[in-house]
Amino acid sequence: MTKWAYSFSEGEAEGSAAMAELLGGKGAGLAEMARLGLPVPPGFTLTTKVCDWFYANDGALPPDLGTQLEAALAQIGRVAGHSFDDPEWPLLVSVRSGARVSMPGMMDTVLNLGLNDKTVGALARKCGDERFALDCYRRFIEMYSSVVLGVEHHEFEEALDAYKEPRGVALDAELGAADWRAVVALYQQIVAERAATDFPQDPRAQLMGAIKAVFSSWMNPRAVKYRELHNIPGDWGTAVNVQAMVFGNMDDESATGVAFTRNPSTGVRELYGEFLANAQGEDVVAGLRNPQPLTETARLAAKCSGLSLEAAMPGVFARLCDYARRLEAHYRDMQDIEFTVERGALWMLQTRSGKRTAPAALKIAVDMADEGLISRADALNRIDPASLDQLLHPTIDPEAKRAILTSGLPASPGAAFGEIVFDTREAVQLAGEGRKIILVRMETSPEDIAGMHAAEGILTARGGMTSHAAVVARGMGKPCVTGAAGLRVDYEEQCFTVLGKRFVRGDRITIDGSTGHVIAGAVKMQRPELTGEFAVLMGWADATRRLKIRANAETPADARLARKFGAEGIGLARTEHMFFEGERILAVREMILADDAEGRRAALAKLLPMQREDFKDLFEIMAGQPVTIRLLDPPLHEFLPHNDAEISSVAAAMGADPAKLRKRAQELSEFNPMLGFRGVRLAVTFPEIVAMQARAIFEAAIMAAMETGKPAHIEIMVPLVFTRAELDFVKNCVEATARAVEEETGVKPGYQIGAMIELPRAALRAGDICGTAEFLSFGTNDLTQTALGISRDDAGAFLGPYTARGILPADPFVTIDQEGVGELVALGCARARKARTDVALGVCGEHGGDPASIAFFDRIGVDYVSCSPFRVPIARLAAAQAALGGKASDTTA
Amino acid sequence: MTKWAYSFSEGEAEGSAAMAELLGGKGAGLAEMARLGLPVPPGFTLTTKVCDWFYANDGALPPDLGTQLEAALAQIGRVAGHSFDDPEWPLLVSVRSGARVSMPGMMDTVLNLGLNDKTVGALARKCGDERFALDCYRRFIEMYSSVVLGVEHHEFEEALDAYKEPRGVALDAELGAADWRAVVALYQQIVAERAATDFPQDPRAQLMGAIKAVFSSWMNPRAVKYRELHNIPGDWGTAVNVQAMVFGNMDDESATGVAFTRNPSTGVRELYGEFLANAQGEDVVAGLRNPQPLTETARLAAKCSGLSLEAAMPGVFARLCDYARRLEAHYRDMQDIEFTVERGALWMLQTRSGKRTAPAALKIAVDMADEGLISRADALNRIDPASLDQLLHPTIDPEAKRAILTSGLPASPGAAFGEIVFDTREAVQLAGEGRKIILVRMETSPEDIAGMHAAEGILTARGGMTSHAAVVARGMGKPCVTGAAGLRVDYEEQCFTVLGKRFVRGDRITIDGSTGHVIAGAVKMQRPELTGEFAVLMGWADATRRLKIRANAETPADARLARKFGAEGIGLARTEHMFFEGERILAVREMILADDAEGRRAALAKLLPMQREDFKDLFEIMAGQPVTIRLLDPPLHEFLPHNDAEISSVAAAMGADPAKLRKRAQELSEFNPMLGFRGVRLAVTFPEIVAMQARAIFEAAIMAAMETGKPAHIEIMVPLVFTRAELDFVKNCVEATARAVEEETGVKPGYQIGAMIELPRAALRAGDICGTAEFLSFGTNDLTQTALGISRDDAGAFLGPYTARGILPADPFVTIDQEGVGELVALGCARARKARTDVALGVCGEHGGDPASIAFFDRIGVDYVSCSPFRVPIARLAAAQAALGGKASDTTA
Repeated sequence: MTKWAYSFSEGEAEGSAAMAELLGGKGAGLAEMARLGLPVPPGFTLTTKVCDWFYANDGALPPDLGTQLEAALAQIGRVAGHSFDDPEWPLLVSVRSGARVSMPGMMDTVLNLGLNDKTVGALARKCGDERFALDCYRRFIEMYSSVVLGVEHHEFEEALDAYKEPRGVALDAELGAADWRAVVALYQQIVAERAATDFPQDPRAQLMGAIKAVFSSWMNPRAVKYRELHNIPGDWGTAVNVQAMVFGNMDDESATGVAFTRNPSTGVRELYGEFLANAQGEDVVAGLRNPQPLTETARLAAKCSGLSLEAAMPGVFARLCDYARRLEAHYRDMQDIEFTVERGALWMLQTRSGKRTAPAALKIAVDMADEGLISRADALNRIDPASLDQLLHPTIDPEAKRAILTSGLPASPGAAFGEIVFDTREAVQLAGEGRKIILVRMETSPEDIAGMHAAEGILTARGGMTSHAAVVARGMGKPCVTGAAGLRVDYEEQCFTVLGKRFVRGDRITIDGSTGHVIAGAVKMQRPELTGEFAVLMGWADATRRLKIRANAETPADARLARKFGAEGIGLARTEHMFFEGERILAVREMILADDAEGRRAALAKLLPMQREDFKDLFEIMAGQPVTIRLLDPPLHEFLPHNDAEISSVAAAMGADPAKLRKRAQELSEFNPMLGFRGVRLAVTFPEIVAMQARAIFEAAIMAAMETGKPAHIEIMVPLVFTRAELDFVKNCVEATARAVEEETGVKPGYQIGAMIELPRAALRAGDICGTAEFLSFGTNDLTQTALGISRDDAGAFLGPYTARGILPADPFVTIDQEGVGELVALGCARARKARTDVALGVCGEHGGDPASIAFFDRIGVDYVSCSPFRVPIARLAAAQAALGGKASDTTA
Repeated sequence: MTKWAYSFSEGEAEGSAAMAELLGGKGAGLAEMARLGLPVPPGFTLTTKVCDWFYANDGALPPDLGTQLEAALAQIGRVAGHSFDDPEWPLLVSVRSGARVSMPGMMDTVLNLGLNDKTVGALARKCGDERFALDCYRRFIEMYSSVVLGVEHHEFEEALDAYKEPRGVALDAELGAADWRAVVALYQQIVAERAATDFPQDPRAQLMGAIKAVFSSWMNPRAVKYRELHNIPGDWGTAVNVQAMVFGNMDDESATGVAFTRNPSTGVRELYGEFLANAQGEDVVAGLRNPQPLTETARLAAKCSGLSLEAAMPGVFARLCDYARRLEAHYRDMQDIEFTVERGALWMLQTRSGKRTAPAALKIAVDMADEGLISRADALNRIDPASLDQLLHPTIDPEAKRAILTSGLPASPGAAFGEIVFDTREAVQLAGEGRKIILVRMETSPEDIAGMHAAEGILTARGGMTSHAAVVARGMGKPCVTGAAGLRVDYEEQCFTVLGKRFVRGDRITIDGSTGHVIAGAVKMQRPELTGEFAVLMGWADATRRLKIRANAETPADARLARKFGAEGIGLARTEHMFFEGERILAVREMILADDAEGRRAALAKLLPMQREDFKDLFEIMAGQPVTIRLLDPPLHEFLPHNDAEISSVAAAMGADPAKLRKRAQELSEFNPMLGFRGVRLAVTFPEIVAMQARAIFEAAIMAAMETGKPAHIEIMVPLVFTRAELDFVKNCVEATARAVEEETGVKPGYQIGAMIELPRAALRAGDICGTAEFLSFGTNDLTQTALGISRDDAGAFLGPYTARGILPADPFVTIDQEGVGELVALGCARARKARTDVALGVCGEHGGDPASIAFFDRIGVDYVSCSPFRVPIARLAAAQAALGGKASDTTA
């Protein structure tokens, strides 16, 4: 018999933290807290297996669930001392979703379940507050009807407004028990009309309805979208947690709040969080009321006028601090805790590893390692390498003048600049056109996720540090300012006003998610210094990893950035990028139009000094580190104009015959340029290009070595090779140039020659190619294009459906296709190594900066990866994690 | 010490037939004839190692060669009884090239070497004919000066003409000894002026010069071109044969000729050949005089007025017949023999395996096997599979009326039709434009090879059956008529006249190389019947081979042809070819323009009955043999118009909006269509296309089975697969259609589903793909494009230089690249077989019809190859040879 329900209560639980897969994160956390003896309201978790059954059986529940449910309810009753049917103190429960990983706000929740026309009176009598009981009941009707019965929320809101208006009532607080009784009746009428059924009175029927609705919400569109964005498999399913209600809104000795065991924004070790007195938990998350800080320190820093929890309920605060410490020590990770205080009693409702910003994650990991709570290996494994990208985000230059419009909460750090847009759809559309967007909302809701994703930053008028906008933005690593003071958003007019100033759609602002500042226009930004915990963690990573990390760079700026980010050389300098600038393109075109090798040599002679300067800069900056220079790669037609107007103007600028230019452009045009006259094929046909580039390299190296005192480490890379004979041909040409330079200068250029492996045949023939090549660098972009037969430029038409339908597990241009392209790389490495034991093996496709791909490359014995400068830190960490493999101590369950 | 020179003379030789690699074909043949005791003028062969040394040392000869040369000359002297220095009877020698395989006329020859101002007198005295001696001397000066000293031939010809004209002399024969003495003086003067040196008088200096010149001629442009055309490696080098001269031009008891042991045109067992009385060998090959047949039978058949050798020199003829018989029995192959008769003495100058037409090769192989001379396996191995193509060439329909202009010699069989062109360069150019050309020349020379290659057929006014034109045309398998009676060619006017009729460049004629007829305009042609020796040999091949042979065919005509040629099924029916015809293209375009699946289904419904008819025809013709139908493959833009004019007219024809048509064409256009939205990617995006095609296949199969009584053998092939999930997707769709058809008709369609393996990833994942695929067919065209990264459409710009420079050994689209693409196929086969032991493995690229590729496919365990119908016989034979491997008895050295 399958066990569908797992009970828990203070001091005992059938589940544990290890069972998140079965019980969901929330259920596992509740069970673990119960085992630890923390005060948890009694309840039980229906497992994700029930969810599986539900979806496998058209929305039915397992037939034997009923019995287990009754037993679990009875267990709650035994601990809580009352039941659904208790005429004096009826049991009320909450029904909450709980997936394996947190999907905040994406699925449905029902609170106060168990209330009906009869039990509402019992509740009133028991807590001595009829108004409270009736308010709970109408909230329950509202929530249950919208979640389970499909009555839209606004129907109830409008009815409430219609009730209040003629009575001159503005705030709900002004309504008394009689009013709420009337409202309950109104609500029941709406349900009867809209849902064509009476509001269910039987608590067990209510419970079954709520459970099914929560399971159903696993597949609602925003949950599906969220899973898509976060790569959460659809077949994981959710658990459902049924738990005795505790009320944070029972009186002024009641409260509800969230706490982090460390600051999730900065990582500082302090109890951090917010609470609302006399409120239900949903009120905090919804951001409708601005909550108060937990500690006095935080209250003073935020200049809040209210009371902190520390001041308002010192006993509760002390217990909360104790529990937070115990939970962090137990889980060995920063915890995100939900709690409720009911008439002075502290109840723990949730604990889980807290989401945090990238800087906070870094600080927490390094601090915890320093505190001895975790190992350095754990610390390295704790950081998602991709999140480091955020640390490289710009911040506002502290010296810069800034026209501050207003301040809000620093909800997610980093600065962002862009056009203001008020609508998610528009944000997605404009961002798709390459425009930078700041999404401005009153507050955000799950429907805004796509817009937040598309925006550079998010600004909201309402909400606190744990509001939807803040939590989601931190998760995305997007700068965010919430609760901006005095900001009035007018969706109708597509504008906001702040302190009398009006900003319309398209106006530009800057937000600083680290300070909460909102600034008109652009402000000077700066890259962060990569010091402190970042430097410490990178140091650990460097001490751990086996893979070397290089950068793809050809400009001096990129080369300097690469060094700053810790690159150990340049793994790919694409010389053609140097061909497009200013007057060079003229010489390049002259070369292409030349009638013979003599004419080409004359044009190349003009390029020589410029190329030499390019290379000299690189060699000087890299100061003895390896620099891999790829010979000219793209098809020549890329350098020519294509349409008639361009041809005319280019011909005029060159003093060339437009007809000749057009003819040459036509001759060079190709059906499949990707598979055309490019790479080493250019070198074989026009060896004079190789001669010029080799000369520029050697002469630059000699000059740079004189300036830096360090001999340049030259690696000449031949692109698109598929057979050793091509490489031999180019090598002969390079050697002849080296001899000529030696004769002229008396200095013998030292260099290595290698092949870029970007064709399947080259991977297969790597052993043979290594007869000549001293190094190989796998160009996995083109290798993916050829091995899978996918033109990256054309893939849009079909690749989307492929990943969406699961035909491909991931975009093969982002994460290497291990089974196909990966096997080619692995085969190539093995064959190369066998043929030449000291061959250097690198990867210089974009996969070189992708953590999952880096793990693979480490496993198959690649020596180094080369990626864009900004991904170098990511690659360093990913390489360290790869080296650790499964070896880090497994302490975080 | 390296042995550089190998001596031979009647009855003894240092070399043998087995040493062709070292001695060249001619040298090995001379040695072998000497060993057999045949009358061979004494001589020696300088090995191909000398040639290697020569090219490795900037044209020098090995230092120790001199000693060996002297010894070898002394040996000649001992056998012949005289030496260079003999005052009474000076030794004269010939210096001839001799590569491993015959390269007729491509390299240089020097005859009569040893003559000088002194020895010419001795020769005159010895043979008692001063005029003859002086004529030999002036020929020697002419030949030596042009070959060794670089004096152009026409200088001598013009000087001779200038000498003859004032004297009223037309023919050389009219010149006496005094005239030749004067001409010799004139020639020596020309040499002194043009070569800035006196004509060398020292026979040893002459010999060294001639030897070097012959080695040098290995690299002359026409030899290089010839090797390129015939795939002869440039590093083989040539040997040089130095041999005592015998004179076929000494008197009327002297003669020179060539003989084949069987008829090289028909294969009939008869002594076949030609001779010229009182002539040197070069005169026969040059085609300047029309030679006489050897036998009386042949003379009568050719209606020649002169004497046959049989009649003129019966003793010589009898000896020749005897030698021919002995040589053929010894070599177990038809021999091509050169001989000279000097004053009644028969000397054998060369024997080698004779070139022959494809029909002759076939008949000779089958006859020799029937005669017991060789085994059937030998017979199969004797035929170059590619040559069978000639047997499938059209011949003139015997019933057709023909306007015969004239007749010449039937020099190379088969009929050809085309525009007349008089110039090699023009022939190459026009053929490159796809035009059919007949090359018309006075006679051909090695400079014409490229033009002959480009032409459909060759017609010459002069020359015999063994003239340059005849020999080369037979080697190429091109129809050729030589020595056409009454044909006058005027290169200036670019025309020829025959019997008063004038034909200018561009006029169309037909030639019949089997009868010698030259015909105005076009004549009805026919395909030959594949009976007789052809059928016998094919029967032996079928009994020998393991590989099955299928054909690529989609039209009923091709399917019928495939069966006629012995195909065992259709290995590739490209359904898109069916989409272009007539009104279908309209429905196809309507489908492409449809806004949704509904619209596409409506358009596809129009295509369904047409596709069904297509398939029904195929199934009926193939009557139970397997038919592999490939689902729609090409990118959809191939079906749309591209330029504005086409778009307008197509839109009008369809009643569609031109703007919409243009937009759709733009949307579908691609940067790299080869790697784009095609193959299974279409099926995944538009499964309704699969549904239509599957329905058409199943319904057609049911109908065809009812008509033929044989169930259709259906194989549905999915193109461009790279992962099993794609195939699963299509299979689901096909299965749903099969179920629907079964429900409608009550007949359950039987079929297999498989994948076309044309991407490297697919080859690597073949094992996984075979989880679904019941067969795999390797599309080696696309696999070559992707594995090597070569777009076939664009390869022209660089692939030529690649093969020319030896970077690629052969065009990888003609012969499979075994090391790269081949390994992918082999890997794919091995993995597929491991995953599914009964999987059927085929190859359906053009390599399926290439003998070298077929041998490879046989070796790696492919089950069948599929090729174009005309290549099916070639594939059958190549498969038999592959099965024989090295197992045929090795009798032909």
